[in-house]
Amino acid sequence: MSDFLALLARKTALVDEALDAYLPPADRHPAVIHEALRYSVFAGGKRLRPALTLAAAAVAGCPEQKVLPAACAIELIHTYSLIHDDLPAMDNDDLRRGKPTSHRVFGEAVAILAGDALFSLAFELLTRGGREAGLEATRILQVVEEIAAACGTAGLIGGQVLDVQAAGRQIAPAELEFIHRAKTGALFRAAVRAGAILGGADPDTLRRLTVFGEYFGLAFQITDDLLDVTGDAETLGKPVGSDARNHKHTYVSLFGEHEARRRARQACAEAVEALSGLGPAARFLRHAVQFIATRDF
Amino acid sequence: MSDFLALLARKTALVDEALDAYLPPADRHPAVIHEALRYSVFAGGKRLRPALTLAAAAVAGCPEQKVLPAACAIELIHTYSLIHDDLPAMDNDDLRRGKPTSHRVFGEAVAILAGDALFSLAFELLTRGGREAGLEATRILQVVEEIAAACGTAGLIGGQVLDVQAAGRQIAPAELEFIHRAKTGALFRAAVRAGAILGGADPDTLRRLTVFGEYFGLAFQITDDLLDVTGDAETLGKPVGSDARNHKHTYVSLFGEHEARRRARQACAEAVEALSGLGPAARFLRHAVQFIATRDF
Repeated sequence: MSDFLALLARKTALVDEALDAYLPPADRHPAVIHEALRYSVFAGGKRLRPALTLAAAAVAGCPEQKVLPAACAIELIHTYSLIHDDLPAMDNDDLRRGKPTSHRVFGEAVAILAGDALFSLAFELLTRGGREAGLEATRILQVVEEIAAACGTAGLIGGQVLDVQAAGRQIAPAELEFIHRAKTGALFRAAVRAGAILGGADPDTLRRLTVFGEYFGLAFQITDDLLDVTGDAETLGKPVGSDARNHKHTYVSLFGEHEARRRARQACAEAVEALSGLGPAARFLRHAVQFIATRDF
Repeated sequence: MSDFLALLARKTALVDEALDAYLPPADRHPAVIHEALRYSVFAGGKRLRPALTLAAAAVAGCPEQKVLPAACAIELIHTYSLIHDDLPAMDNDDLRRGKPTSHRVFGEAVAILAGDALFSLAFELLTRGGREAGLEATRILQVVEEIAAACGTAGLIGGQVLDVQAAGRQIAPAELEFIHRAKTGALFRAAVRAGAILGGADPDTLRRLTVFGEYFGLAFQITDDLLDVTGDAETLGKPVGSDARNHKHTYVSLFGEHEARRRARQACAEAVEALSGLGPAARFLRHAVQFIATRDF
């Protein structure tokens, strides 16, 4: 595990350095929006999604450096979705990763626009960064198309709509699965596929990595739900029990802790199984699953 | 003029039909967000920006049909920016084109997400639609990059940040120009350039069309400011005097009506001048300038 954390730390450092270079300086006019972008992007994210993009490219035999812009774009999209989810009209959260949320610091108008700005910057980065890295134009286009679809009403946004609407009323297990697949799964899947496609993975490798991404996202979501019940607020950097307070449906509230743990273990097993045949190049991804299975933050 | 309106109506019909085909059906799960997308997209827009995209492609000798997805993407981005601008945390507008704004009908959460969804759909359309139309991948990439940049903190969002911040305090003429160039000009410029680039315009034609787009956007914004003072609420589909009530800075409030008219005329003249040498293919664009110079809605 400490081996994985060291590898993750190296990828995190790479992503953080690139994000710092890609984001406009905080004092560029109009300064408030650029401060807001940097505030949320550098609020202590684990950079798990971009790390998966880098690792998937490596599995395909492509240097991580070439997909660094795409990895950063994925992280910008993740950050944008968190800023908008936290807004008063949505989940109305005051804290995120132990720090006041964007709208608490900069006000609602700037927080909405900061999310919008990160979203547009992500697409700028995907295209400009991909071009500058010398990636094939058709591959970049495919990735832009898939990421845009993952962010739309069949992905991130559809999931968030249902999540907001479902709060406080009864829902069926199938609906919870739809919400999580859309809200969390789609971006994990897109993160892995972006690295694989840009890295030039062959069809079989791409298929395996896609299945991996889907199960990994599911396992991540279930453990996230579990941690909100069983986790430690200080380690997590956010209050526990917020799902219950917000009447949010989770794998724990719908299936109970025991069944949620069983499903998390099963998703982890499927994720590892999908990597079989990919050899030592997939070591980071295998360890990432172990990390998810045992994570406490 | 009636000649131009007939040509515009033909382009509007083409764009409306395509938008109807590209937007998910209103009853697709989750229905509320798809209803919200269609509500705002079909709220009576003039489709001026997409018409410019189609016309610029035609100047480059490319069939309009091939850039229809890009034209629609531009309109989706325009609609997204209106939905977010109207939000209570921003301009807090209840009416847009004579109809209740998105957040008045669907609530703030869905309105924020509807804007986000239109933005992601725009990028999906640019890439998928461009690929299906058989456009060159490198040209599509350039357009995605330019449109994303036009939507960012140096364009749409930067302009909106300054607009929100400037309300109610003194600003210099240079700041007003920055706001309008970013908030309105960037998307007009991108709309024209998208058509020209995807249509394969040669460098000189692209340069001329770019200058045209910049001056056209400026002329549009100044006449928009003038109409808020001198226009008729029924013809406009929105209350007049809203800029003054919201303490918004306009070309009229900063320079007076006489000087604003002079600047609008000058911008129109520069826009027409930029088209010189492009021959009969640019007839629609020339007439579009006359339309802006005399428009009352």
